Amino acid sequence: MTDDGELHLHDVRENLQRQTFMRLLGAGALEISAGRVVIELPYREDLCQQNGFLHAGAVTSIADSACGYAALTLMPRGSDVLSVEFKVNLLAPAAGERFRATATVVRPGRTLIVCTAEVTALTEGRPDVVVALMQATMIARGPR
Amino acid sequence: MTDDGELHLHDVRENLQRQTFMRLLGAGALEISAGRVVIELPYREDLCQQNGFLHAGAVTSIADSACGYAALTLMPRGSDVLSVEFKVNLLAPAAGERFRATATVVRPGRTLIVCTAEVTALTEGRPDVVVALMQATMIARGPR
Amino acid sequence: MTDDGELHLHDVRENLQRQTFMRLLGAGALEISAGRVVIELPYREDLCQQNGFLHAGAVTSIADSACGYAALTLMPRGSDVLSVEFKVNLLAPAAGERFRATATVVRPGRTLIVCTAEVTALTEGRPDVVVALMQATMIARGPR
Amino acid sequence: MTDDGELHLHDVRENLQRQTFMRLLGAGALEISAGRVVIELPYREDLCQQNGFLHAGAVTSIADSACGYAALTLMPRGSDVLSVEFKVNLLAPAAGERFRATATVVRPGRTLIVCTAEVTALTEGRPDVVVALMQATMIARGPR
Repeated sequence: MTDDGELHLHDVRENLQRQTFMRLLGAGALEISAGRVVIELPYREDLCQQNGFLHAGAVTSIADSACGYAALTLMPRGSDVLSVEFKVNLLAPAAGERFRATATVVRPGRTLIVCTAEVTALTEGRPDVVVALMQATMIARGPR
Repeated sequence: MTDDGELHLHDVRENLQRQTFMRLLGAGALEISAGRVVIELPYREDLCQQNGFLHAGAVTSIADSACGYAALTLMPRGSDVLSVEFKVNLLAPAAGERFRATATVVRPGRTLIVCTAEVTALTEGRPDVVVALMQATMIARGPR
Repeated sequence: MTDDGELHLHDVRENLQRQTFMRLLGAGALEISAGRVVIELPYREDLCQQNGFLHAGAVTSIADSACGYAALTLMPRGSDVLSVEFKVNLLAPAAGERFRATATVVRPGRTLIVCTAEVTALTEGRPDVVVALMQATMIARGPR
Repeated sequence: MTDDGELHLHDVRENLQRQTFMRLLGAGALEISAGRVVIELPYREDLCQQNGFLHAGAVTSIADSACGYAALTLMPRGSDVLSVEFKVNLLAPAAGERFRATATVVRPGRTLIVCTAEVTALTEGRPDVVVALMQATMIARGPR
C-alpha cells in the first residue's frame, strides 16, 4: 500500500533511471527521500583524468543528478527538472573505491530550487574524504 | 623540425589522451593552441539526461577538460594541471549532433589560471546554439 | 520625441537611481542600452579591503547592478529584476582611479536572463586591467 | 595572559578593522574563532536595491569578508588573505533589521582555502531567514 508521497518518490526513481548517462557511468541511487538524494558511483579506470583520479566531470555529473532529483522530490507529481547552473569546488583529488554524492534542497521555491551537494570518496579501511562541494540551481518544469 | 612551443603543445595533447573519461565519452581535441583548446563530442544516446538531451555532466566534462588543457598550454613544460573550481550556466537544452567546448585563458597566473569556456551544439542545416558557459579556475602543478 | 524603446531605457535608468547603495558607493551608469549596461565607480578610500584595494564586495556590487539592469533592458516595460545567483572570479588586485563594470546579456530568457560582466580598473597613463569576471543569473518579475 | 592562538585571532580582528568598506557599511565582527567568523550588518536605508531590500552586493560583501577572515584564522601568523572567487545564491529578498554572515572553512589548504557562508536576515519577533549562500575560494599570502 502506497500513499501519494511514495508514488511520487517512485516516479522520481523512474525519471532518474531514464538518464542513460548515469547508466554509462555505473552510477545508481542509494537513497531518494523528500529533499534528499544520494547517488553512488564505483571507481572505474575509464572514468579518470590524466593521473588516474576520477575526472572532475564525472564527480560533477553525479552531484548534478543528485541535486536535480533532490529538487524533483519536492515538486508536484508529474513535474520535470532541469539544471539552471551549478558551481563546484574540487577539494581533494578524487581517489577512492566509491564516490557518493549527497544532495540536499536548501531552498524549495516553486520555480527555482537551490540545492547543495557534497561528493565523498570512500575506501575500505580509510577515512572518507570530501572531494567536491556543489551549489546548484534547478528549475521546475510543471506537469503537463 | 619542431621548436619548444610545438613540443609543449604535443605534450599537452598526450596529457589529454591519458584522460580515459574523454575516451569513454568519445570526445577529442579539435584544436590545441597557446591559451585555447577546443574539444568536440558527438551526440550519443548513452550520454543523456531523462529527456534525451546531453547530460549537463557530459557538457561540463568537455568544458572542464578544455579549460584545463587551455591552461596547461601556457604553463612551463612538464607541468600538470588540476581543476580548482568551475561554474556552469546551462543556457539551452543540449540538443545537437555534436557539441563543441571552446576554452580560452583569461588570466594566465603563475599558480592560478582563470579560463572561460563556451559549449555550442552543432546540427547540420541549423544554426549553432550556445548551450553552456563555464568560468573556471585551474591550478598549476610545477614540473618535478 | 521618444519611441517605446527609449521610454523603456529611461525607466531602467530610473529604476537604477532607486538603488541607494549605488549612491552610497558613488557609482553611476555610463551607458544603458539594449542588453548592455556600464556602471562606473571612482576609487574612494572608504571602499577598500585591508590593503587599500577596492573591496571585492564593492567590485561585485557594481557588476551585479550592471548585470541586473542589462537584463532589465530586455524585459517588457514595467518589469522588475532580481539577482538569482552570480559567480565572480577576482583576476587582479582592484587598484585604480576608477572601476568600470560592463555587463552584457548572453541569454535573454523570458524568466531567467544570463549575463556576464567584466570589471576593469582604469588609471590615467596606465593600461586598463580586468580585475573581475562575473557570470550571473537574473529573474524577471513581470509587470503588475 | 595570551597564548599564540589568541594573539593570532587578535591579529585577524585588527586586519578586519583595516577594511574601510566594512566600516562604511556599518558591519562588524560578532565572532572570530578558529575556522569560523560571523559578521553582522544592521539594516540601513542607504544599503538597498530598488525595492528597499539590502543590495545583493552588500549581502555579498559581508559574506566575502567573513569567508576571508575565517580562512585567515587558520593561516600562519603574519599571513594575509585574498579572495580568488566566490559564488552566491540569493535565496530570498534580504529584508530584516540585521544581517548576519556566518562563514566556515571547509577545506583548509596551505595555499587555497575553501569556505562556505550563510547570510541570515534577523528581525525581532520573526523567524530568521537564510537570504544567501556563498561558496568561496581564498588564497593565502605568506608572512613576509
